[in-house]
Formats: sequence, structure tokens, C-alpha cells
Amino acid sequence: MRAVDVIMKKRDGGALSREEIGFFVDGVTAGTLPEYQASALLMAILLRGMSAEETAWLTDAMVHSGVRVDLADVPGVKVDKHSTGGVGDKTSLILAPLAAACGVPVPMMSGRGLGHTGGTLDKLEAIPGFRVNLSLDEMKAALRRTGCAMIGQTAQIAPADKKLYALRDVTGTVESIPLISASIMSKKIAEGIDALVLDVKTGSGAFMKTEADSRKLAESLVSIGNASGVKTEAVITAMDAPLGRAVGNALEVVECIDVLKGGGPADLVDVSIELTARMLVLGRVADDLADAEEQARDAIASGAGLDRFRKIIEAQGGDSRVVDDPARLPHVADRRVVTATRGGYVTRVDAELVGRASVALGAGRDRVEDPVDFAVGITINAKPGDEVRAGDAVLELHYRDRARLEAAVALAARAVTIGDERPAAARLIVGEVR
Amino acid sequence: MRAVDVIMKKRDGGALSREEIGFFVDGVTAGTLPEYQASALLMAILLRGMSAEETAWLTDAMVHSGVRVDLADVPGVKVDKHSTGGVGDKTSLILAPLAAACGVPVPMMSGRGLGHTGGTLDKLEAIPGFRVNLSLDEMKAALRRTGCAMIGQTAQIAPADKKLYALRDVTGTVESIPLISASIMSKKIAEGIDALVLDVKTGSGAFMKTEADSRKLAESLVSIGNASGVKTEAVITAMDAPLGRAVGNALEVVECIDVLKGGGPADLVDVSIELTARMLVLGRVADDLADAEEQARDAIASGAGLDRFRKIIEAQGGDSRVVDDPARLPHVADRRVVTATRGGYVTRVDAELVGRASVALGAGRDRVEDPVDFAVGITINAKPGDEVRAGDAVLELHYRDRARLEAAVALAARAVTIGDERPAAARLIVGEVR
Repeated sequence: MRAVDVIMKKRDGGALSREEIGFFVDGVTAGTLPEYQASALLMAILLRGMSAEETAWLTDAMVHSGVRVDLADVPGVKVDKHSTGGVGDKTSLILAPLAAACGVPVPMMSGRGLGHTGGTLDKLEAIPGFRVNLSLDEMKAALRRTGCAMIGQTAQIAPADKKLYALRDVTGTVESIPLISASIMSKKIAEGIDALVLDVKTGSGAFMKTEADSRKLAESLVSIGNASGVKTEAVITAMDAPLGRAVGNALEVVECIDVLKGGGPADLVDVSIELTARMLVLGRVADDLADAEEQARDAIASGAGLDRFRKIIEAQGGDSRVVDDPARLPHVADRRVVTATRGGYVTRVDAELVGRASVALGAGRDRVEDPVDFAVGITINAKPGDEVRAGDAVLELHYRDRARLEAAVALAARAVTIGDERPAAARLIVGEVR
Repeated sequence: MRAVDVIMKKRDGGALSREEIGFFVDGVTAGTLPEYQASALLMAILLRGMSAEETAWLTDAMVHSGVRVDLADVPGVKVDKHSTGGVGDKTSLILAPLAAACGVPVPMMSGRGLGHTGGTLDKLEAIPGFRVNLSLDEMKAALRRTGCAMIGQTAQIAPADKKLYALRDVTGTVESIPLISASIMSKKIAEGIDALVLDVKTGSGAFMKTEADSRKLAESLVSIGNASGVKTEAVITAMDAPLGRAVGNALEVVECIDVLKGGGPADLVDVSIELTARMLVLGRVADDLADAEEQARDAIASGAGLDRFRKIIEAQGGDSRVVDDPARLPHVADRRVVTATRGGYVTRVDAELVGRASVALGAGRDRVEDPVDFAVGITINAKPGDEVRAGDAVLELHYRDRARLEAAVALAARAVTIGDERPAAARLIVGEVR
């Protein structure tokens, strides 16, 4: 088989065979396929598309580029959640302990923040001592001990994805539903779970800006998961404004602890409960969503979720005292406020701009190898729909470096829009695919 | 400027700016743009296209990746001819001496055979001693001395094209009219000519299979040439069957000598005279095509063209005795004939299959670094329209290596079709663009 023939076939709109897709993925994994051929094929795939069948084969080839973890010796129906990425999107730190507390084992493999979106691993690492780079054996041990393990992608899991993602990032070939689907699902299938809840974000702060595109992506993901024996369903949730009031790693951990203590912003609580409930049904510890939702809320009210979060932190080497003493988390003393330029109602807090402002402060990274400042971030004092007077502090920037601050303020100031009319309450749960 | 932004702009169907195109070409030339980014952009260009303006900027950037030769100190209107490539397409060896003999200086920079098509350089090198790798100074000296220089692309001429072509060849990005146009025209503009006649081939043995595609390519080429101050016109000629009766390097040289002596196959003579006549008009030694055609035919009848060919060979170090003694050219003694399987009329001699059979014998190359056997090739005894009896030798394969012969016979046998009706005479000159 010649790589150029495979490229030309896709270029001309043809459907690739299972063998051709395997040849491509194996070549990328082994490093025998030159990157210039891989990138030409990626661009052809982005522009010509892939059928559901091709996407399933691509995912399968990527799964088989590494190991598919066998969790059969861990009792229970193992359920994970994956989000396509947002700003202030911290639900993993809430739903994982809640689901585990309700009896569903959660082997969760997460990513880091990239671009304007945050990542679960960075948030966890804001907790002093927390280790996310567990080996597969350590992951199984943690899963048995606490019902949950929250780790990063290991080298054994879908190595083809790691190489392909790095190449897509620099060749303008990220925004392709088949390629995104295969990337997400290969890792999830390889981690050995039985079921998966997807949180597909939609809106200005999401990867997919329109509901139609988000639905297409959700359908592609669900179809691949179910075809691979992982019971999969997706919730499509709004990502026009940041979720909750905290953006930035340690700030978000504090907000998660608030939710587990029964407080926290309503939007964050609602999305977290919705996702947890679906995990409980898929994990067969609840009969239906109403029952599941009640169990999830009970786990908050009883303190079982918070207690489970303490145990998870301890099992992975972290300092669980942060749960009762958030001052133990990294923090900075300096604040700069962005004030309302007029009185009225907040009509928009643009998630992407807030996310970029947070990255500018140092909470995220421009490049994979950049370090992250766990302490900095943004607090959102006024959310869309809130009434403000001129001069009210709408956003509060927690900063360390004044040089970084100015760039962040310029972005953050543009994020907020104030109008005369109170905006209609936006839907938070936009749809579902199952 | 970031390469990934340029790639994404073209990927999304945008028009690139002159600066963005320059950034791309300069990066390829200097080796600072990674090949995986160049190939992703090439695929996006192939699938999204380029406007006439973008194509002109691309050509210009490729011209300026090297030197644009200044031939102002060589008197006369310098005219070259370029063919998009065919099988048995040997007109350069006829029209260059004819045009030079009629007073038009011909600085001709040609290529080698690749794929199923032949190349002028390989044919010239079949003449013992003939040097095609002249320096630019040697080229000027030859041009002054004989009115013609026939050379290969030097390292100074459009180095970006050399790098891009090598990358396109292995990434399925050859078949793009803007990329083909820029590749051809950058070299022609850089060689310092005043005018150019293009022979755009069309048909099953050509790069462009349909007349519509051939016309599009011709229009693109003519538009770029004229925009760059090179007076350019194109003739679209048929390439369904091989041109003439000889395919293979030394065999084709012999046929060219036959034409210059007043013989040779009618189709080859007609295309050669047509192209020469256009060169004479562009070179301002003839008033119109009728006058030019008469001058070209006179140069054959008087022996001036043949004499000029001798001088060109001598000026470039070749053995000009081959003109009177073709046995001095490389040749092989072994022949295998492909015979007519039935009586009737030859309806088709497929140019691509004959070309591939000739390559299989060793006359062409599969890879750039492969050596060429000048002696081997194919003689076409019966052309489309000719009547044959069962058992007549339709093709004659001149071979050296029996192992290579069998593959060639398999291809050649499929090239010939015989029917009951004499086919209508095919048009040879299909159209023109000026």
C-alpha cells in the first residue's frame, strides 16, 4: 500500500477501507509514515469528511495503537464523563466524588487546558501534592480503594492520538468532527470503561459554536461509543458564559468544594447534578433520572460527596485539608476589578474572552510546554441576568504579574455587555443524544 | 505571521494575501517552514483552489526564490516552447532547430520524463556526449553561437519549485491547476524569455484528460505569462495516441532527424510546424501564421533546420554524426512484436499504456533517481485509422532485459484496439488560447 494512493483516494472524496485507515494510524504510531504525508491526509479528511464507518475504524485503529485497559477485576459498572471543553467547566471535580459516593466506580482519564479552555488535570494539580500521573496499576488500586481515580493520559493509552493531535494542532486540522470524535473516543474506549456520559458544549465559548454542529459531534461520539461496546450518551449544554463564578485552577477547586458543601452557583450545581444522575443510571445504581438526581442531591446533603472527595485527594497523594481550609490552596493577594461602565442588566459575559483573559493571567497555557499558575484567575461577580449599577465590580482578576495583567484586563473588559432589558434566562441543558 | 493561520485561511476557502503566499514560498525555499505544514497547505490549495491573482502571486514568489535570468544582451526576441507532457512528444527537438534556423533565439529549459511521459532532457542525452547541464553563462554562449540552447533546470532557477514539486509528488497534491500553473510558469519566466508557446496536451495520455480541464490549464498559464511580461499563447493538442511512431529516447531522436530531413509521420510534422510557426510570429520574424508556416517548411526543405540541429549538438558537446548515421545512437538488437489479434481497423493506440510499457522497458523512470535506458522503446507500426490483418505487427518493442519485457508486453497488448469500422480522423489541434 502506498501512502500517496490513500491520500489521493480521500482527496477525491472516496471512502477509505479499514486496511487503509489502519495503515495510516500504524504508520503515524510507528513513525514510519512521514509527517508531511500524514498532514496532507488529515487536511483531505477535514475537507472531504469521513463516513460513520470510517470514523469507527479510525477510532478502533487508534485504540489498538496502545493497550485497552481491562478493568474486569474491579467490581461494578465503570462510568466516566467527558466534556468537549469550556470555561469554568469544573464539573468533573464534583460529579466524580458524587458518583463514587453513590456506588459507581469512576475511572476518569482527563486532559490539560489548551487554548482558552481549562483542563481537569490542571485543576487537580492546584491541590498541593495531588498526583495525576498514576500508572495503570496505581489507577486500579485507587479505583478499588475510593471508587474513583482521576488521572492523565498514559503513554500506553492511544499513543496514535497523542501524535496525531500534536500534528493537527500545527496544521490547521483540528476542527473536523471525525477527527475530534476519534481522538476523544479512542482514549475513552481504551481506558476500559463500561459506560460514558458526554458533556458536549455549545456556544461562543465552546469548540462547536452552533447547536447543529454540537449535535453532529454528539451523534458521532455516541455512535462510536455504542459501536465499541461502551454505553454512551451525550448531554448538550450551553457554553456562552462561563459555568459558575470561578475561572482559574485553584479558584475552581474552591467553588467545587462549595458545591459539595451544598452551596455554589445554580448553573454549576444544575449541570453537575444532571451529569451525575446520568452516570448513576448508566452505572445501574438508579432506576431512572429522577431517582438518580435524588441520590446525587442526597450525597451532597449528607456530606458523602465531600467526604469522598477528601478520600480521593488522599489516595492520590494530595493535601485533603484544603477541603476545610481553602487558604491552603495556591492564591494571590492582588486583585483588579473590571467595573460596569453603566447601570443595567448584564446581557453577556463572553466565555471565550474570559477564558483568554484567564490564560493571559497565567492560568492556562499558549503552548503545551508552558507552566501554569494555579493561583491566578477570574471571579465573575455578576452573571448574565444580574442587575448592576455603574461602577459595580463585574469581574475580579486575581493576578500575580502586572505585565500579564494588562493584556488580561483588555480581554476581560470586552467580555461584559450591559443592556437596558433583563435578558431571557438561557437554557443550560440544550439537548441530549443517546 | 503563523503558518497555521495561513493554512486555516485557505482551508476555510479564503483568498491568501501576497504576503501570506510569500511567507509560504520563502519558508519552503529556506527550509524554515516544516514540510508537514507545507503539505497541509498544498492539500488545502488543491481542494479549495486559488484565484488568478493568488496564482500570479504564487508564481511570482517562486520566480523570486531564485534568479530571473537577464538575456537582454542576447539580440532578438527570445522564444521558448513548453509542453505539459505526452507520449512520443518529441517536438522540441524539431522546432528548436527550425525556429533558430529561421532567426528566433530559443533558450529552452526542459525537464526529464516522469510517470508515463517522456522528457526532452532524456531524449537529448541519448545523443552521445550531449551535455544538458550547462551553466547560465554557457547557455548564453550557446544561444549566441547557434541561436539555441537546450538545458535542464539549474539550481538558481525557481528553487522553490523543485522543493514544492518533490513534496507534491508524495502527498497527492500534484493535480491542481494553480499549483501546476505556478510550477510551469515560474521556471519559464525565470529563464529570461520574451515569449512562450505552450503545447497543452489533452486526452487519455495527457495529464488533463478532458478538453475543458486542458483549456482551464491553458487559460491559467497564458494569463500568468502575459501578466509577467512574457507574451504567451497556448495550443491545445490531442494526446490520446502517442505522437508519431517512436516512443523511447534514441528512437525518438531518429524520428526527429527524419522530420528535419523532410520525412516522418504526418501528425508529428503537423504539430511541430504549428508550434514552430507560432514561435516565429511571437519572435517577430514572420507576419502571420501562414507566412510563418511557410518559413518553417522551407527550413526543412532547404536542410537549414537539420544543419542547425547539427550545430546545436556540437555546441553542447554531442556527436553530431548521429544525424547522418543514426546507428551511432544507443540501440538494442532484440525486438518483440505485439500483433493484431484480428483483422480490421486500429481504433485506439492508448498513449498512457504505450508510455507505461516504454517505462517498463527502461526508457523512463519510476523514481527521480532511476537511470534511463536510452536504447529501448516502442515503434508503432499501425496508427489509429490504419487497416491491419490478424497477425500483423502493430507494435514493436525494442528491449534489453527479458524480465522487463514481460511487464511491458502485458501493458502494450492492452493499448491496441481493433474494430470493424475505420474511425473518424481525430483532430490533432484541438484549440488555442492567446
